[in-house]
Amino acid sequence: MTSTASGPILVINPNSSETVTEGLRQALSGFFFAGGPAIECVTIEHGPPGVVTQRHVDEAALHTAAVIEARPDAAAYVLACYSQPGLDLARSITRRPVYGIQDAGVLSALALADLFGVIAVAEGSIPRHLRNLRRLGVDQRLAGEVALEGSVSVAESGHGEESYGLLLRAAEKLKTLGAGAIVLGCAGMSGHRRRLEDETGVAIIDPTQAAVAMAFGNLVTGSA
Amino acid sequence: MTSTASGPILVINPNSSETVTEGLRQALSGFFFAGGPAIECVTIEHGPPGVVTQRHVDEAALHTAAVIEARPDAAAYVLACYSQPGLDLARSITRRPVYGIQDAGVLSALALADLFGVIAVAEGSIPRHLRNLRRLGVDQRLAGEVALEGSVSVAESGHGEESYGLLLRAAEKLKTLGAGAIVLGCAGMSGHRRRLEDETGVAIIDPTQAAVAMAFGNLVTGSA
Amino acid sequence: MTSTASGPILVINPNSSETVTEGLRQALSGFFFAGGPAIECVTIEHGPPGVVTQRHVDEAALHTAAVIEARPDAAAYVLACYSQPGLDLARSITRRPVYGIQDAGVLSALALADLFGVIAVAEGSIPRHLRNLRRLGVDQRLAGEVALEGSVSVAESGHGEESYGLLLRAAEKLKTLGAGAIVLGCAGMSGHRRRLEDETGVAIIDPTQAAVAMAFGNLVTGSA
Amino acid sequence: MTSTASGPILVINPNSSETVTEGLRQALSGFFFAGGPAIECVTIEHGPPGVVTQRHVDEAALHTAAVIEARPDAAAYVLACYSQPGLDLARSITRRPVYGIQDAGVLSALALADLFGVIAVAEGSIPRHLRNLRRLGVDQRLAGEVALEGSVSVAESGHGEESYGLLLRAAEKLKTLGAGAIVLGCAGMSGHRRRLEDETGVAIIDPTQAAVAMAFGNLVTGSA
Amino acid sequence: MTSTASGPILVINPNSSETVTEGLRQALSGFFFAGGPAIECVTIEHGPPGVVTQRHVDEAALHTAAVIEARPDAAAYVLACYSQPGLDLARSITRRPVYGIQDAGVLSALALADLFGVIAVAEGSIPRHLRNLRRLGVDQRLAGEVALEGSVSVAESGHGEESYGLLLRAAEKLKTLGAGAIVLGCAGMSGHRRRLEDETGVAIIDPTQAAVAMAFGNLVTGSA
Amino acid sequence: MTSTASGPILVINPNSSETVTEGLRQALSGFFFAGGPAIECVTIEHGPPGVVTQRHVDEAALHTAAVIEARPDAAAYVLACYSQPGLDLARSITRRPVYGIQDAGVLSALALADLFGVIAVAEGSIPRHLRNLRRLGVDQRLAGEVALEGSVSVAESGHGEESYGLLLRAAEKLKTLGAGAIVLGCAGMSGHRRRLEDETGVAIIDPTQAAVAMAFGNLVTGSA
Repeated sequence: MTSTASGPILVINPNSSETVTEGLRQALSGFFFAGGPAIECVTIEHGPPGVVTQRHVDEAALHTAAVIEARPDAAAYVLACYSQPGLDLARSITRRPVYGIQDAGVLSALALADLFGVIAVAEGSIPRHLRNLRRLGVDQRLAGEVALEGSVSVAESGHGEESYGLLLRAAEKLKTLGAGAIVLGCAGMSGHRRRLEDETGVAIIDPTQAAVAMAFGNLVTGSA
Repeated sequence: MTSTASGPILVINPNSSETVTEGLRQALSGFFFAGGPAIECVTIEHGPPGVVTQRHVDEAALHTAAVIEARPDAAAYVLACYSQPGLDLARSITRRPVYGIQDAGVLSALALADLFGVIAVAEGSIPRHLRNLRRLGVDQRLAGEVALEGSVSVAESGHGEESYGLLLRAAEKLKTLGAGAIVLGCAGMSGHRRRLEDETGVAIIDPTQAAVAMAFGNLVTGSA
Repeated sequence: MTSTASGPILVINPNSSETVTEGLRQALSGFFFAGGPAIECVTIEHGPPGVVTQRHVDEAALHTAAVIEARPDAAAYVLACYSQPGLDLARSITRRPVYGIQDAGVLSALALADLFGVIAVAEGSIPRHLRNLRRLGVDQRLAGEVALEGSVSVAESGHGEESYGLLLRAAEKLKTLGAGAIVLGCAGMSGHRRRLEDETGVAIIDPTQAAVAMAFGNLVTGSA
Repeated sequence: MTSTASGPILVINPNSSETVTEGLRQALSGFFFAGGPAIECVTIEHGPPGVVTQRHVDEAALHTAAVIEARPDAAAYVLACYSQPGLDLARSITRRPVYGIQDAGVLSALALADLFGVIAVAEGSIPRHLRNLRRLGVDQRLAGEVALEGSVSVAESGHGEESYGLLLRAAEKLKTLGAGAIVLGCAGMSGHRRRLEDETGVAIIDPTQAAVAMAFGNLVTGSA
Repeated sequence: MTSTASGPILVINPNSSETVTEGLRQALSGFFFAGGPAIECVTIEHGPPGVVTQRHVDEAALHTAAVIEARPDAAAYVLACYSQPGLDLARSITRRPVYGIQDAGVLSALALADLFGVIAVAEGSIPRHLRNLRRLGVDQRLAGEVALEGSVSVAESGHGEESYGLLLRAAEKLKTLGAGAIVLGCAGMSGHRRRLEDETGVAIIDPTQAAVAMAFGNLVTGSA
Repeated sequence: MTSTASGPILVINPNSSETVTEGLRQALSGFFFAGGPAIECVTIEHGPPGVVTQRHVDEAALHTAAVIEARPDAAAYVLACYSQPGLDLARSITRRPVYGIQDAGVLSALALADLFGVIAVAEGSIPRHLRNLRRLGVDQRLAGEVALEGSVSVAESGHGEESYGLLLRAAEKLKTLGAGAIVLGCAGMSGHRRRLEDETGVAIIDPTQAAVAMAFGNLVTGSA
């Protein structure tokens, strides 16, 4: 954890979709300050179009590690996929801070509310997320995790009325279950965050923003 | 959680020590960006010189609430005392996000490591901290919490070789206990953070920086 | 925990309602024995009419502490409000035993049954209660907590057919959820205890009686 | 849980030692009030001299049940052995409240302190106690359980300087481990309670007194 | 845990039903190999026809112990009743491995799936099972336990279309609750295992087979 | 989980050491019965010589998946490496049962004892194991995990006096910590199992034997 690095916060999109990476850039644009840490979002070209299956996750782990090794200049790394492919591997090959967005998103939700909810893109990834919540040790504070009741791609999940409607329905359900903060369970949903927060009155956490905020806070130095 | 606020992140030092508040400003100076959220650190004039006893905590709760009510313009509030006086009360009187630095610090540590440690200023506050870790639901991931083996005031704890030596000894002990990240259990220790991180090789979390980073991430908005 | 005290068990009603205090006296009348520990119920005159909001709780903490300091003659203290205002503070200023009625009620329920339920006066206080159950470390044994489905004041909650009907409905629901013992989540519900127990066949715990029983047991001394 | 019973609180000593039963009577003498619930202590004549082995526990379960069936007049039952032989069986054959002294003692300790300790008569019974703490769901709040460092019978454990010295050493050790309240892990240690409390400054819980206090509180009725 | 025993795995049916014991033999017939460990299933003649009540459990504990003492030649013992009568007692009187089928079944389910479900013969035994899951420490991974919606004896539960239909309905419900593996909560249901597995697509665990498999694995020795 | 498969239990050694695979065959020879399930041990030729680093684990995940896809005839799969590379991936690509040896070993230990211990080959893998115990949800029952106090390869860990001495020392330490069963935390230690069990008097679990036993039990079918 040497702190002299002056390189960027490297935000790694482990899928091959430039659209998703561009969405990350937009989601993170609020962190771009003159004199602040640089934030760089990269795409893994030979990754899958979206990390959906467990195989995608396990393959992405190695791709992510390759990116990290190719970019030793970075001051911190953010794995911008809710399945956090290769988090343990990344930590084994660099001493810089590595953030996974599920961990960062969930932990940020717990800093605001007693119970949190999660909106998943698809039903199939919920068991994988629950395993990680057990690993993280905070599964007892989950109000619930619900999947969108319709088929939406990662890239589409943050844009358009249709996907917004699905997110709203999921958020309302989680509110009923007692969620005081809701984590968007996919790096692509970010575009709907503010509107969802305004309409539901519940704190909505974009996990990539949460992870970058943590990295940001880790890197800034006091003047003392 | 309305998101239209353009006011500052209000960092509330619940004790009356301007020295401590000035220390907070220095610790947070890295977050001051042109165009970024304003960060304002305030002292509670009629607070105790340091929040040490449970009475201090309970009295500070009401003082903190008064500050929050006097400053409805703030976009977010940070309770910059590791005992988080009035956290629940604050959340009951404002819909803006309220962060307690213990919660934020500990949760940020968990985003980096399997087990965390805490350095307390004094033995007497450890049971209070442990009660909060149970409330937070993450006590099972505590490697240990140790107090400085010497008498140091909150204001002194972040300056000088003597206090640094005490922090280093505590950090080394926590490392032995398995801590992969260490939270500074007092708002005043910030000045030693980088040096301690460099010399121990373990991530050191300043809890006020962690809380402000979370508030910062909560407020920044994407461009989408 | 010096044991030579011969003063009363001081039962502190942290609200200003003499009606509620009188209800406590009635609920505890079964503990009044010639030669037994005296039990004295006091009202905090400048307290709120009922402890409903978090502010009420935090203000009551200081009022309660003032009462404790004014009555060093007491042999034990009972905080007769389900939100236990000032429990930690009280313990920091006296070495006599201090009981909070939520803790005492819930722990007494666990001495009788596998899972317990709680009847709250109002929905709004449930999250606060849940936070305390996490602090207490027994949240996993909660079958459920339900609020009365109607608006009833603390003082009214233990009298009359209307409030009884609401309690009965809540108790039946908790029974369905698996509760083997039910805690009355308010100091004022006591009047309905026996009838509710007889009609539901489930153990009903009045938390003030439970706390006083614990204090009583703590004070009595064997003859050996 | 019918509440019309006017019979005694039946305290069942599951071993055959009249000395131990007489010790229970002395420990509980403080609960004997004119007009209060009667408290009757009975010995199981054909029980073992002390409940030491698991076989003793399992045999005592059936003996205890026989006593309960022979005494349907009792208003409540207390199983006055720290291994609580037949607790589940007892509850399956009577609708009156049944208290086991381990559960009651430990839960009463948690009403007073963050962490509790237990003093066991012998090393061999500790795993059995730990299994019950897991069943009870409060094992995470155990500071430690230590056995007396010397061989003492159940009947001797509450009398004489030698056994007192062993208890004191155990209590001091538990204090070091963070115990804020200490449960005497045997029905026979009661005679040393007050002295141990005075000398250690830590709350000492006699589990039989704790259980009878709970039963007492369960039976007393308000005047409303 | 001496390993030189060459005796059989003794499977103890703690009820007096030879039909049930014969069912166990059939369920375990797949483990009978020339040269493999012998597996012997015994009936407790003076046991109850079925272990249903808590008294049955507690009486069976002593009967089981008597069998174990009468058969010191056995290399391992399996308590073939889901209530595991006398498990702790058995372990206190022999150094050979002793398996209870609930523990073995549930732990085997956790080796296959994130969450497990249990099918109970009757509603009344569910609280007893839950107490054991807390003792075992895996209650948090229970998706649910449901009872057959009809009255079926232990002996009948593994044969015939009617009981199969009840098992199927229970299994489908548990699947909905998220169970990835389902434990048959009774030693008698074994006959339906394969069909239920094929029709639901969920792993079905016969707990006696699971326990014998563990004992089998414990006894086989490598050739090194 | 279709149960008609008649293929072998495929035991996959994810490293390239034929010596280790041969050791697995020896360890499992006790399961080879005429008429029993076939057990086949395979080496991943292009795997690392030993799975030591996190990269080894993540690469082995994909190799293991390739083996599983190449062998759809197998009736069950055992991942014979304590780090269980690719367990989730394996389960996503086959409906046959897949066992990881850490999970199977630990769960088998819990079927025999209150608390378990683990002997790791090297200190560095302990945090990885602890993460998995949290995922598995049984970390609270770990008495301790200790590494061999000397450098031994996976292949050597089960042979010779030197490695035996290291295992014995580790086992004695775990016994002191309360472990009632000890899991060999490496597929290669099997050769020392019986001797270690005889000399310590504590149940020693070879995790590969435990996993194969579970698979064996899963595959055998009753005659009903």
